[in-house]
Amino acid sequence: MLENMFGRGVRFFKTLSVFRHPVKTKKTKLRYVGAFAVGCSVATYVASTHKAEMAKKKVMKVDTSHFMAEPLTSIAKLSENPDDMKTKIELLIMKIQADFCRALEAEEDVDVRFRVDRWERAEGGGGVTCVLQEGRVFEKAGVNVSVVTGKLPPAAAQQMRARGKSLQEGELPFFAAGVSSVIHPRNPLVPTIHFNYRYFEVREPDGSVQSWFGGGTDLTPYYLSEEDSVHFHRALKEACDRHDPSFYPRFKKWCDDYFFIKHRGERRGVGGIFFDDLEEPSKEQVFQFVKSCAEAVIPSYVPLVQRHKDDAYGLREREWQLLRRGRYVEFNLIYDRGTKFGLYTPGARFESILMSLPLTARWEYMHIPSPGSKEAQLVDVLKSPREWLVDEK
Amino acid sequence: MLENMFGRGVRFFKTLSVFRHPVKTKKTKLRYVGAFAVGCSVATYVASTHKAEMAKKKVMKVDTSHFMAEPLTSIAKLSENPDDMKTKIELLIMKIQADFCRALEAEEDVDVRFRVDRWERAEGGGGVTCVLQEGRVFEKAGVNVSVVTGKLPPAAAQQMRARGKSLQEGELPFFAAGVSSVIHPRNPLVPTIHFNYRYFEVREPDGSVQSWFGGGTDLTPYYLSEEDSVHFHRALKEACDRHDPSFYPRFKKWCDDYFFIKHRGERRGVGGIFFDDLEEPSKEQVFQFVKSCAEAVIPSYVPLVQRHKDDAYGLREREWQLLRRGRYVEFNLIYDRGTKFGLYTPGARFESILMSLPLTARWEYMHIPSPGSKEAQLVDVLKSPREWLVDEK
Repeated sequence: MLENMFGRGVRFFKTLSVFRHPVKTKKTKLRYVGAFAVGCSVATYVASTHKAEMAKKKVMKVDTSHFMAEPLTSIAKLSENPDDMKTKIELLIMKIQADFCRALEAEEDVDVRFRVDRWERAEGGGGVTCVLQEGRVFEKAGVNVSVVTGKLPPAAAQQMRARGKSLQEGELPFFAAGVSSVIHPRNPLVPTIHFNYRYFEVREPDGSVQSWFGGGTDLTPYYLSEEDSVHFHRALKEACDRHDPSFYPRFKKWCDDYFFIKHRGERRGVGGIFFDDLEEPSKEQVFQFVKSCAEAVIPSYVPLVQRHKDDAYGLREREWQLLRRGRYVEFNLIYDRGTKFGLYTPGARFESILMSLPLTARWEYMHIPSPGSKEAQLVDVLKSPREWLVDEK
Repeated sequence: MLENMFGRGVRFFKTLSVFRHPVKTKKTKLRYVGAFAVGCSVATYVASTHKAEMAKKKVMKVDTSHFMAEPLTSIAKLSENPDDMKTKIELLIMKIQADFCRALEAEEDVDVRFRVDRWERAEGGGGVTCVLQEGRVFEKAGVNVSVVTGKLPPAAAQQMRARGKSLQEGELPFFAAGVSSVIHPRNPLVPTIHFNYRYFEVREPDGSVQSWFGGGTDLTPYYLSEEDSVHFHRALKEACDRHDPSFYPRFKKWCDDYFFIKHRGERRGVGGIFFDDLEEPSKEQVFQFVKSCAEAVIPSYVPLVQRHKDDAYGLREREWQLLRRGRYVEFNLIYDRGTKFGLYTPGARFESILMSLPLTARWEYMHIPSPGSKEAQLVDVLKSPREWLVDEK
């Protein structure tokens, strides 16, 4: 009864404020009003103490009300710590999730909407997993937020030390929050996108805190379109350049190196940006950079969906798409650090981690595209990554 | 020209000796006559020096001629070392491969035959990969032999030490030979089978040699048939019991423990047997045990194919089969030691390692079978492995 009332309230509000997004489907069993109401009070509090940021916080007020579900951290705790990076990142990723889900829904048939699962983790924290499956435009689209606290598993601490973190021994309390998404469209002319932006804090036995950001956005087309690749990379470069001119070239290369299917000697796609362990020049500056990157996802990708979602294709293109998705699965399950870290974390919600896998994939023994075919053209680029913006320096 | 002559010679011989197996397809570009001729001379030599084994060696003579391709080790080297375990295991796995491929072909339409790829590895050794794809009965069937020599990669040595091998430091020359197979049938009422039998030798800097056998056979049904599971386990138990009554219970449990998809808390299938690092009571006795296991593959599995290959099924069963195949991919790419060892070995032929992946697989977010459904019945057994032969002790 109470839930029904909340439901009606939300629908009323949503219908008023975002006219292009129709009423939630029945699958969404969430309480929004609390989030909305207290979200506003967070915004109000922040606005009154930081006048210079008032304009930005007012935007946050609207965005907060649009979250796909209530944040993971209690509204009370968020309101009390508006300047804590943990609060800022959680509110950012909730907003990024909601904006992206709605931008994708706008490309879909009106009766196809994200299913929203808000879940909690016994060890601390939880997440909001949004999945849209078997749409007309998107075969499988997942956008996941997780805000997790607990003790760092020794294997994870070891992995961090291996990449240069000087972490003390012992049970280290950690906080990890991130948004991650993989979109597998139905039309093989629409590329797949993946992005992930995350913030990590580890508290050492002496009380000191280490923190860093990581993330990236990368594109996996099934057929090469130079125009698409240039559009995509340009959007990412613009986001990077606003913060540091060295970021795009550095993180573009990092992306080509990271999304590498070693046993095949090919990259997963046409790249993008990727970075990890970013903590300089300051926490706030890196946060602003991550925010720019995350906000660049929609302009980098949605125009490509619009451009190609109604392109004609046949069985040949579909089969090639499924084979390429097999490669995507290989990368995610064999090499991806995020997937491994996720699956090895005690109490991990594997459904949220594995939502990145495509609805369907295919493996043919010894499938080699004919030389010169459009399939071979893609593979050539995967084997020798290109600079997409050479004329734009 | 010479190759054509050989080809004709082989066809002539094969037509005489194995009437149910028609002429090889054009894809098979191999030279058999050499293997056959010298195979006979090996048999003759062995027979003259070990009279007690003469009967068995005579069988070997026929089997050698039926190999899918020439062995990896030169015929000269094999003939000179008939009692070397490296020779014995290579001849065994070539025979097991051929017998199994032909037993499967006998269940297929007559125009569907294994493609045979014999390959060599720059670092030493090579393999014979047989794949049958898109048959009427088998959607994808792979049977692979590899005989590999080289220096043990440090990561592999480390992995062996971690499971208790006391290996010295340094570049250790190794020899590894094995047969492995995964069969994905088209009909969801026919289970998938996997087996792998292998022999490993490492030469230490002081000249001493460590050697051991490993392997197993396990069944992955899409729908539970107690009758099938009992038949399968009984065939394996009989093979084990001929050597040691403790083997079946020990290796059955090992199999349940090994083929475990940890993040889902479920086994890959209804089990079978699995063992590793077996070197006692003697190399010869373990070889005979491994031979019995490998020879039990056909009687354990082919009757199940015959029983179900023409069973009626619909879209529901097909979709469930594809979802279960997604789990199979998860196990192979995330957990399987063989796949990892393979992909991390320099110069590995990834097509032969990944032939174990199904032609098609599917991942649905939060797919949970209805309680009490036949799909849920299978999952129950995957979560709580059963003893299939409780009344047969």
